[in-house]
Amino acid sequence: MFIHKNSQEVITRPETFSFGAKADPFLLENGEQLTRVDVTYETCGTLNPARDNVILIEHALTGSAQCAGKHSPEEKTVGWWDPLIGPGKAFDTGKYFIVCANVLGGCYGTTGPASINPETGEPYGMDFPTVTIRDMVKVQKKLLEHLGISKLKAVAGGSMGGMQVLEWAVTYPEWVEKAICIAASGWLYPQAIAFNEVGRRAIMIDPKWQGGRYYPGKGPVDGLAVARMIGTITYKSDESMNHRFGRKLCSEDPGRYFCFDEQFEVESYLHYHGSALVKRFDANCYLYLTKAMDLHDVSYGYDSHEAALSRIQAGVLVMGISSDILFPTYQQKEIVEILRKCAKKAQYFELNSPHGHDGFLIEFEQIGPVIQRFLNLPS
Amino acid sequence: MFIHKNSQEVITRPETFSFGAKADPFLLENGEQLTRVDVTYETCGTLNPARDNVILIEHALTGSAQCAGKHSPEEKTVGWWDPLIGPGKAFDTGKYFIVCANVLGGCYGTTGPASINPETGEPYGMDFPTVTIRDMVKVQKKLLEHLGISKLKAVAGGSMGGMQVLEWAVTYPEWVEKAICIAASGWLYPQAIAFNEVGRRAIMIDPKWQGGRYYPGKGPVDGLAVARMIGTITYKSDESMNHRFGRKLCSEDPGRYFCFDEQFEVESYLHYHGSALVKRFDANCYLYLTKAMDLHDVSYGYDSHEAALSRIQAGVLVMGISSDILFPTYQQKEIVEILRKCAKKAQYFELNSPHGHDGFLIEFEQIGPVIQRFLNLPS
Repeated sequence: MFIHKNSQEVITRPETFSFGAKADPFLLENGEQLTRVDVTYETCGTLNPARDNVILIEHALTGSAQCAGKHSPEEKTVGWWDPLIGPGKAFDTGKYFIVCANVLGGCYGTTGPASINPETGEPYGMDFPTVTIRDMVKVQKKLLEHLGISKLKAVAGGSMGGMQVLEWAVTYPEWVEKAICIAASGWLYPQAIAFNEVGRRAIMIDPKWQGGRYYPGKGPVDGLAVARMIGTITYKSDESMNHRFGRKLCSEDPGRYFCFDEQFEVESYLHYHGSALVKRFDANCYLYLTKAMDLHDVSYGYDSHEAALSRIQAGVLVMGISSDILFPTYQQKEIVEILRKCAKKAQYFELNSPHGHDGFLIEFEQIGPVIQRFLNLPS
Repeated sequence: MFIHKNSQEVITRPETFSFGAKADPFLLENGEQLTRVDVTYETCGTLNPARDNVILIEHALTGSAQCAGKHSPEEKTVGWWDPLIGPGKAFDTGKYFIVCANVLGGCYGTTGPASINPETGEPYGMDFPTVTIRDMVKVQKKLLEHLGISKLKAVAGGSMGGMQVLEWAVTYPEWVEKAICIAASGWLYPQAIAFNEVGRRAIMIDPKWQGGRYYPGKGPVDGLAVARMIGTITYKSDESMNHRFGRKLCSEDPGRYFCFDEQFEVESYLHYHGSALVKRFDANCYLYLTKAMDLHDVSYGYDSHEAALSRIQAGVLVMGISSDILFPTYQQKEIVEILRKCAKKAQYFELNSPHGHDGFLIEFEQIGPVIQRFLNLPS
C-alpha cells in the first residue's frame, strides 16, 4: 500500500558533524580549502546492523535537511518530502534509514558564506570559496563515513537535489545502488544559468549587499526578494498560472485598476514568495548555491558526457515534469539516452503535471508509487 | 518579387505633432487627463491624393517610430522593421504611406513620464497618469486625423505593437481595413505580467529610482539593466540559447571557471543587453509601458472577449512564433478562434523559428511574403 498522507508524525532532530583542521583541510574542487566544515543533517528510521539500508535524500536550492517530519509536535509545517518519507511511505522508514544533510554553501547549519571564517573570526561573506555540486557530495560522503556507512541503497532528490544525485552516482559509483533524479539535468543549460545570473545581479545591485559584508544584518532583502520572484516564475508553468491566477485582481475596486501597486493576484503571489524567502534565507548563500548550479556539469574533468555517465554503476530512475520550464523534460531524456547508450540500467518516467518545476514538491500521488516500485526492483 | 535586403536606403525624419490644452485636455482611460500631448512620428512613402494608402506600424516596448530607414546616411543602424518596409518590400513604400508614432508613455519624443508636466514645469516622473494601450491608440488616431487621414489600409505590429493593432481594430473598427498582429495577445496572461512585475520591482528597489524623481539624471540604471536582462531571457528561447551559447565560457582560463564574474557567454550577453538599454531608455517609461501591457485587455469595458472582437471589421492576420515563451502561440490561436467564431475573416500563420519572441524582429524571410500576400488580398 502506498501511504502519502501524514498518517504518522515523525519527529526529527538536526545533528551536526564537524571535520577538518588546519593540518587536514577539506579540499574543494576549485583548489581552495576549508579548515573546518560543519555538516548539519537529519535522519529518520533506523540504521540496520549491516548498515546497508541507507537512503540519502538531497535537497534543492532553498531547501533544507528537514525532508520529513517535524522538529517538534508544535511545528506547523512538515519536511518538504514528508508525504514520501515515513513509515509505510515510498521511502519507508520501517525499512530504510534516511539521511539528509544541508548542503555546503547553504545557511541551515552546514558551512557556508554566512559561517564564521576560522581565520578571521568574522563571517566569510564573499571570501567564502566557490563551491560546486561535487564539493557538496564530497562533504556528504565525509558525513556518511563518519556514520559508519559505506554504501547507499539509494540517493534521491529533485532540482539541485537531482544534480547531486547524478554527481554521487558518477563520482562515487561503487557507493550508489540506485539513483533517483527528478527534474534536474546533468549540466546546467544556458537559460537556467541566465535566470540565475539575473537573480544574483538583483542581489548585488542592492546597496545593502555591500559586497557581501552585511552580517549580522539581513543584508540585501529587496534584491533577494526580486531574485526569488524570478525563481518563482520559473518554478511554475504558464498553464498553472493561467489556471490559478488568470487576470484576477487583488481588489475589485475599479479605481485601483490603474494603480501601480500590485493589482493582479499573480503579482501578490510573487511578492509573497519574495518576502517569505528573505525571512529564512541568506542572500550570499543564494549567490553561492545558484553559482554551484551554474557550474554543475557532471562531466567536468571527463572527456565527454558519455565518459562521465558510463562510470555509473547504479540503476537510475530519471523523472521529468511535463510542464517544467526550468529543467525541460528533454534534459532528463538526454541523461537516460546517454545512459542507455552506455548500456546502463536507466528508466525515464514523466510526471504529467501542470505545476511546472514545483511538481516534484507537489505530485506525490504520482511520484510515490514510481519510487516505491523502483526501490523494490532487484539491483 | 519580395525584397528584404536593404537594397535602397530610406532617409526618415521624425516630426512632432502637439495637441491638447487646458480647455481641451486629452482624456485618458483611467479618467485623468493631459493638457498637452506631443506625438513624435515618422513616415515613409507618399500619401496618395485619396489619402487611402496608409499603413500604420506599431512599435514594441522599447522600440521607436524609426521602423524603417535611417535619419541620416551616416547612421549605422536602420529601423527595426527596415527589411520589411521600403520600395518593393513587404510594406511597399512605392504603394503605401507608412506612419509610425512613438507611443504615449514612452521616451522617444511622445509625451511620457520623462516629459515636462506643464502644471509644474518639472518632469512628471510618477505623477504621470497610468496610460493604457487604448490610450496609445487614441493618441495615434489624433495624429492621423491631423494628417487628414480617416482610414487605414492596414495596422501592423509585433509584441506590444500587436496589442495596439488589436486595440485599433476593436476600438475604431471603421478605420481599419486589415490588421496584422504578430506575437501578441488580446489580453496579457499572468506569466507575462509576472515577468513585467519582477522587472518593475528591480527598478523600484534601485535607490537611484527615488520614487521616479531622478531627472535630469539617468536614475536607476542598475535596476533597469536587471529588468532588461529578465526581458531578454523572455525574448529568446531555450532552443536559441542552447544553440548560441550552450555552456560556452567567456574565458578559456581554467582559473576563471570558479569566479563569480560573468563566466558564461550567456551571462555576458544578458549584461550587454542590460547595459545597452540603459543608454537609450528611461526607467520610468519602462514602468509605465510594462504596466500598460499588463493592463491590456482588448475586452476591458465589454461583456466578453467575443463582444470586443466581434466589433472588428478588418481582415485579420495573426502570426505566432513557434518558440515564443512570452506570447506562446496558443494565445494567437485563441484570438483567431474567437474571431472565426464571430464569423470574422481571420487567418493564422505560425513562424517556424527557434528565435523565440524576437522572431518578429528576425524572421523577415518568413514574415515578408506572408504580409505581402495578405496586403494583396481583396478586402
